[in-house]
Amino acid sequence: MIIIVKSNPDQQQLENLISWLRSMELEIHRSDGMDATVIGLVGDTSEVDADLIASLDIVESVKRVTEPYKKANRKFHPDDTVVDVSGIKLGGGHFQIIAGPCSVESREQICFVASEVRDGGATFLRGGAFKPRTSPYAFQGMRDEGIQLLVEAKKQSGLPIVTEIMDASHLHLFEDVDVIQVGARNMQNFELLKELGAAPQPILLKRGLSNTLEELLMSAEYIMARGNKNIILCERGIRTFETATRNTLDLSAVPLLKSMSHLPVVVDPSHATGIHALVKPMSLAAVAAGADGLMIEVHNDPPRALCDGAQSLTPNYFKTLVQDVMKVKNALI
Amino acid sequence: MIIIVKSNPDQQQLENLISWLRSMELEIHRSDGMDATVIGLVGDTSEVDADLIASLDIVESVKRVTEPYKKANRKFHPDDTVVDVSGIKLGGGHFQIIAGPCSVESREQICFVASEVRDGGATFLRGGAFKPRTSPYAFQGMRDEGIQLLVEAKKQSGLPIVTEIMDASHLHLFEDVDVIQVGARNMQNFELLKELGAAPQPILLKRGLSNTLEELLMSAEYIMARGNKNIILCERGIRTFETATRNTLDLSAVPLLKSMSHLPVVVDPSHATGIHALVKPMSLAAVAAGADGLMIEVHNDPPRALCDGAQSLTPNYFKTLVQDVMKVKNALI
Amino acid sequence: MIIIVKSNPDQQQLENLISWLRSMELEIHRSDGMDATVIGLVGDTSEVDADLIASLDIVESVKRVTEPYKKANRKFHPDDTVVDVSGIKLGGGHFQIIAGPCSVESREQICFVASEVRDGGATFLRGGAFKPRTSPYAFQGMRDEGIQLLVEAKKQSGLPIVTEIMDASHLHLFEDVDVIQVGARNMQNFELLKELGAAPQPILLKRGLSNTLEELLMSAEYIMARGNKNIILCERGIRTFETATRNTLDLSAVPLLKSMSHLPVVVDPSHATGIHALVKPMSLAAVAAGADGLMIEVHNDPPRALCDGAQSLTPNYFKTLVQDVMKVKNALI
Amino acid sequence: MIIIVKSNPDQQQLENLISWLRSMELEIHRSDGMDATVIGLVGDTSEVDADLIASLDIVESVKRVTEPYKKANRKFHPDDTVVDVSGIKLGGGHFQIIAGPCSVESREQICFVASEVRDGGATFLRGGAFKPRTSPYAFQGMRDEGIQLLVEAKKQSGLPIVTEIMDASHLHLFEDVDVIQVGARNMQNFELLKELGAAPQPILLKRGLSNTLEELLMSAEYIMARGNKNIILCERGIRTFETATRNTLDLSAVPLLKSMSHLPVVVDPSHATGIHALVKPMSLAAVAAGADGLMIEVHNDPPRALCDGAQSLTPNYFKTLVQDVMKVKNALI
Repeated sequence: MIIIVKSNPDQQQLENLISWLRSMELEIHRSDGMDATVIGLVGDTSEVDADLIASLDIVESVKRVTEPYKKANRKFHPDDTVVDVSGIKLGGGHFQIIAGPCSVESREQICFVASEVRDGGATFLRGGAFKPRTSPYAFQGMRDEGIQLLVEAKKQSGLPIVTEIMDASHLHLFEDVDVIQVGARNMQNFELLKELGAAPQPILLKRGLSNTLEELLMSAEYIMARGNKNIILCERGIRTFETATRNTLDLSAVPLLKSMSHLPVVVDPSHATGIHALVKPMSLAAVAAGADGLMIEVHNDPPRALCDGAQSLTPNYFKTLVQDVMKVKNALI
Repeated sequence: MIIIVKSNPDQQQLENLISWLRSMELEIHRSDGMDATVIGLVGDTSEVDADLIASLDIVESVKRVTEPYKKANRKFHPDDTVVDVSGIKLGGGHFQIIAGPCSVESREQICFVASEVRDGGATFLRGGAFKPRTSPYAFQGMRDEGIQLLVEAKKQSGLPIVTEIMDASHLHLFEDVDVIQVGARNMQNFELLKELGAAPQPILLKRGLSNTLEELLMSAEYIMARGNKNIILCERGIRTFETATRNTLDLSAVPLLKSMSHLPVVVDPSHATGIHALVKPMSLAAVAAGADGLMIEVHNDPPRALCDGAQSLTPNYFKTLVQDVMKVKNALI
Repeated sequence: MIIIVKSNPDQQQLENLISWLRSMELEIHRSDGMDATVIGLVGDTSEVDADLIASLDIVESVKRVTEPYKKANRKFHPDDTVVDVSGIKLGGGHFQIIAGPCSVESREQICFVASEVRDGGATFLRGGAFKPRTSPYAFQGMRDEGIQLLVEAKKQSGLPIVTEIMDASHLHLFEDVDVIQVGARNMQNFELLKELGAAPQPILLKRGLSNTLEELLMSAEYIMARGNKNIILCERGIRTFETATRNTLDLSAVPLLKSMSHLPVVVDPSHATGIHALVKPMSLAAVAAGADGLMIEVHNDPPRALCDGAQSLTPNYFKTLVQDVMKVKNALI
Repeated sequence: MIIIVKSNPDQQQLENLISWLRSMELEIHRSDGMDATVIGLVGDTSEVDADLIASLDIVESVKRVTEPYKKANRKFHPDDTVVDVSGIKLGGGHFQIIAGPCSVESREQICFVASEVRDGGATFLRGGAFKPRTSPYAFQGMRDEGIQLLVEAKKQSGLPIVTEIMDASHLHLFEDVDVIQVGARNMQNFELLKELGAAPQPILLKRGLSNTLEELLMSAEYIMARGNKNIILCERGIRTFETATRNTLDLSAVPLLKSMSHLPVVVDPSHATGIHALVKPMSLAAVAAGADGLMIEVHNDPPRALCDGAQSLTPNYFKTLVQDVMKVKNALI
């Protein structure tokens, strides 16, 4: 960490700062220039609060040389993390497709879609049981009953299941869930992240609507710091001024996250764009950019889906999408 | 609600849509033009899922004529909500200043700051016990012990206390807290909002970093739908491309929220800007824009504060700030 | 166009509005509901100022059913525009790669890079002669001399040239330029766009840093309204809160623009990301998303380039990039 | 300027970098730490291209200690710039109100509004002759005829006039214009800025929709570098995800710009919000935040204005606005 001190700082404050830094057992390199004094810190600075230092009156700015995330950092863990769910591997060259409806609506619906997406090439089943909805009056999901139906669909189809948790107190309901999803709005629900750090299942962590990639990795770090090393990162669009799409899918996040971290990265083009016709081109683009997986909404009957119907694909269209995805995937081997 | 149907729609789908709308006991006005068919819905549309309808293939767009929030809506509740905390009123012409340190650090610190800000003009004491921090390695607050210290400071100073909750499971610790704060990152933690709907205390609800004003009101609606009508809205800056400030304080939110809703609106210039020198001008601007209150960080010893020191003011500076705030306030009576 | 009038409007103002609309020879369909009056306009509304109408006190909102761009609109021109530059076609299934250095620096440099990128698979040469630089003290390009060197490189390499114009008064210098580029910062320099509407060359129009896709098409419409129909749209990243990349490349713009318009769409991954290592994955993603072309910075000696070196690729790396791009391209035929 | 070099850099590249820096006559302080090598540059670095250096493979990041703007920088020019227009001073404690219609429409209109706003307290008349419009089919302003009418209104009312230039080739038409405005979309039209650097009139420079404060000051620097020192900066809202207002007025820009620069800062609440009812509260807030002036749209007949009617105030309402503005202004003396 490098601290740039303003020119002509209050000497007492500068001494206070330096002695405080020394108290954290950091080695200090000081270099006095004409415009500024530069303090270089050597040692483990991951617990040093850069924001606090930057806020001091005498400090011009603080620059981390080492990233604040350690366990999620590729520098310290050069090998790709491979998440293994009952033998299905994701990451490290293993590519998987997660598909299913936005919401679980009934036993027939979820079991039908499960077998359809499995036949179409999906290797995981997704479906929302707990639904984060902007309006308290909108359908909030089938909740615990929805999870039971997902478990039934898993038994029938053989596909492991991915579903979203909205509160740590629901964790006991997720025992038979294979991958627990943290939604974009909960990416910085730090108490939930801590609890998930003790969960045995892998976590699919979605990027928040206005969160940076570093913040996403810091949220992964929250989970990993408690012991759970199986994190799947998910890019699902960020909020910008553009109104033609629901969000702006940031595909440069894929190669960047993979260089910053060893964790696998999947892309959700359905929620990112909110537009049926963009799901396929954005799926192909995500794969070309190096994504380790896709998360795609598929519905038996899109026009009557209870939510997000616009993004949902029919099972038949999904099959052709997977075929094209595999063409791109294979072309780049 | 007005639904604009694309030109030459599939007639079967159009009939499906119309019969589905009728099943919700809505009266339907249909007008067929050259470019489009327009369907007007008359009746209570607050539970109609506009996103779902907009997603149908035959639909060009959906336009709500009535807002999706009812209980928070000024149209249906023209009188200002006045939040009354032990006789201290906020809203409806009653202006209050909430002040205190970012974090509770010790009994001496919080009690000292409490008496200082009270003498300087504050009418509420704020202080973080549970701290949402981006890094798992940063100080997470004194948690339950911090709340006990706040309660002591309340007894000594006579100031009611405002502090943040991070998880519904902590609610039992907040019994003696006067106003429960929901932080920006939890604005759409819907399960938490539901629980707070049953709490007896007023809720200070902060706008999320990338949330619209309508979404803020929908989150207030979540709480109100469960019975808790005492909500204080808080503008605290949104995330934009500008890097000179931590966030961009959106002061037009103040008059807009007050026209959209009857709920009181306070402004937090400390977190919004992240810069000591901007707290005073932005406080004055907030008051001039019509804010019902301010939320300001004050610290006994800013340079050594455990977090957010850059935004904190000394008690002495706070006093002059309050004096200037009152000058603006009085000038506009 | 559909105008939603507020409930209980001032009747005189409503009559004024309706008679004004009638004066524009529009047919008017009025439907009075409980919550609102809806006015549907039938006829050519492209010259109706929706913002003006929306601003009236009695108007709740205005919704265009038809887009405000006509000549750039696919609805009225279903066939892809194919831009033909001396027999090299771009659009309508014809894919081209534009490559070259950020800035023209010398005869040797531009001629060397031209032959290298041609051998690597480029079909157009790009190079900046007039350089828009944030700082008045930064290198502003070789200007007219730079254009002469580009023309020499064109003669030697046989590649047509693309270079940026910064002011309409420079247009006479661009006689031998094959494609005139309008930079992101000039996308809404409307006086320049009007002049380019009379130019004989195709225009490569870059999306502004904070402009919507509709605004990009409106800027294309400015050029087309004056007669120049040969426009190539270019997505080059938008400004968001993310700081890890220079801008956020919005690849959903590719399929969306191609559905909204018949104009070809190219992607510039070099400027969008500002990071060397992201150019290849984003090039592959752009092609998978359906781009009609790529615009890539290639430099003979990136570390010493006068500007934008971080994004520039060596000629050798460029060749492997083109090979991979063609693999993706061919896989999707 | 401080350059942080990656750990284990290529030594040859490091030597190249250092010798290149030395060739610019900069003194170099090198400090080798464990994680990084830090290079401090001493001397005039305003012409050093930080982006170029940051782009080198061996460089982790570059941090300016001194700002890239010199002539606009308060550090080197501690005294407030006071712009003097025929004896009317703006800046350095002198507060002015610029008012008038969005567009000049006729002699009667502009002369009537001029006298009305003068009587209401305005000290400058604004009015658009050249209008930047998103659509080529929208009213583009009365252009040179509009400027002649403004000059007439100036003669009748005695108010100096402010109007926007859209292209350097129109400069000869602005001889009798007192203050030349550069619109948000032209903030980085660098060729225009250069020409205005030689103009005798003060320039009112609006912040671009997605430009940072540093970029605004760099654009001011472009003008000042050519000799024109009379710049008035104008905050007029930035583009964010919020859709309830046209743009988000960034009032923290006012105190920040005034600390970064000695140039006066005015605020345009009309364009920023696009909503009639927000102009007054945002005007009051701007003044409380320390603005040196306001720029407000006033129209004789808002509902029929040719553009931007929603933001325009009637002359009578404008008078009460000015009275309230002066109350806030006087309260803070």
